[in-house]
Amino acid sequence: MTIEVIWGSGSPFAWRVLLTLEVKGLAYESRLIQFSRGEQRSPEHLALNPRGKVPVLRDGAYVLSESLAIMACLDRRQPEPPLFGSTAEETGLVWQAILEFDNHVAPLLRRIVVPVFRGEALDAADMQAAAGGLDGELRRLAEAVAQHGWLVGARLSAADLAVYPFVEVLLRATGEEAVRAMGLAIVPLAERFPALEDWRQRITALPGYARTCPPHWRSGLKQGERQA
Amino acid sequence: MTIEVIWGSGSPFAWRVLLTLEVKGLAYESRLIQFSRGEQRSPEHLALNPRGKVPVLRDGAYVLSESLAIMACLDRRQPEPPLFGSTAEETGLVWQAILEFDNHVAPLLRRIVVPVFRGEALDAADMQAAAGGLDGELRRLAEAVAQHGWLVGARLSAADLAVYPFVEVLLRATGEEAVRAMGLAIVPLAERFPALEDWRQRITALPGYARTCPPHWRSGLKQGERQA
Repeated sequence: MTIEVIWGSGSPFAWRVLLTLEVKGLAYESRLIQFSRGEQRSPEHLALNPRGKVPVLRDGAYVLSESLAIMACLDRRQPEPPLFGSTAEETGLVWQAILEFDNHVAPLLRRIVVPVFRGEALDAADMQAAAGGLDGELRRLAEAVAQHGWLVGARLSAADLAVYPFVEVLLRATGEEAVRAMGLAIVPLAERFPALEDWRQRITALPGYARTCPPHWRSGLKQGERQA
Repeated sequence: MTIEVIWGSGSPFAWRVLLTLEVKGLAYESRLIQFSRGEQRSPEHLALNPRGKVPVLRDGAYVLSESLAIMACLDRRQPEPPLFGSTAEETGLVWQAILEFDNHVAPLLRRIVVPVFRGEALDAADMQAAAGGLDGELRRLAEAVAQHGWLVGARLSAADLAVYPFVEVLLRATGEEAVRAMGLAIVPLAERFPALEDWRQRITALPGYARTCPPHWRSGLKQGERQA
């Protein structure tokens, strides 16, 4: 059976999985659902993921949700290149980097990104506070890539693919005029964290990268807006 | 080197790791730090985990945080019994169960447990709302163990060891008189979800289980209180 991935444009969780499939060189069929039409709440999608989330991987009767679970599954299915380390020690460090990001960094990042993409009124004080916390976290990530090349050691790992889409989403949100005007400590990202910008460029140069990009970003629309 | 685990009594995250070490039959030294004395903020502990969290695993110069990362590392170090599945499909399902719990269930559970253990004024309306959401989640978990024996399939997995400590913490919080008096939908847990109670009993029967129990629970003190 061919792997099918159900995803939505601009979801950093879905982007993780597409990058993993490309890096692994696995064939897959891509089914893009439209958040703007509420397709994540359709009976068809809820039958695959009752929480209405993406990404979902389908392979015949096998259905899997949660981006990191899908990445772990794909790494076992196609062990080369190893994305979760080759030794127990590496495995621990890769998962540590991913879970630290999801548990401690992503919640700060969401306080900046979510209101922008939802088109909500921006709470500048809360966004400043979040950016203050995020500043130290991004510095830590920049130091890691400056020292080792990639987030965990000298080789691309699942940590890079899991963190990257969130950095990209943050860049997009902080590039908005209303956010730039706030003068958040972390902006402009590329100048404040050049090592992270360099790392970002190396990820965009991965083979197959272009196929993983949110299609509506290319057409200049924001998340939630009707797509071209 | 012997593995050293730094943990705190009553931390469900630390409990996950202790259970994993026991199930794997790995030798370890246990270093219990006292939350009541703020030892998680000591310079010595912050050097190991700058966020002041437990558990931390130390093995010579190797230091690892994040409970799930430690479990993944230990599973690779000692592959028997396999706790993250034996096939790509099983690996995906085990991680899915863990991440669904951490991302969607634990946040509801914390709204009940944290105020009780911190001795804060209880917000009955919020706890009722959380219990309402938790009811469906616990039913789903109970159905899984009733159908398969364990949370993912017919074999103990990391999902059981990751979820179990949180169920135990929930039981302890909902057993408090002030919480019982609220008549939350999920209480009493053992009667509302007998399959989960049966599963819980089977975990407490695992070899080495007694060594993993929060010591201050045995002495009748609450989390945060000075220990005997």
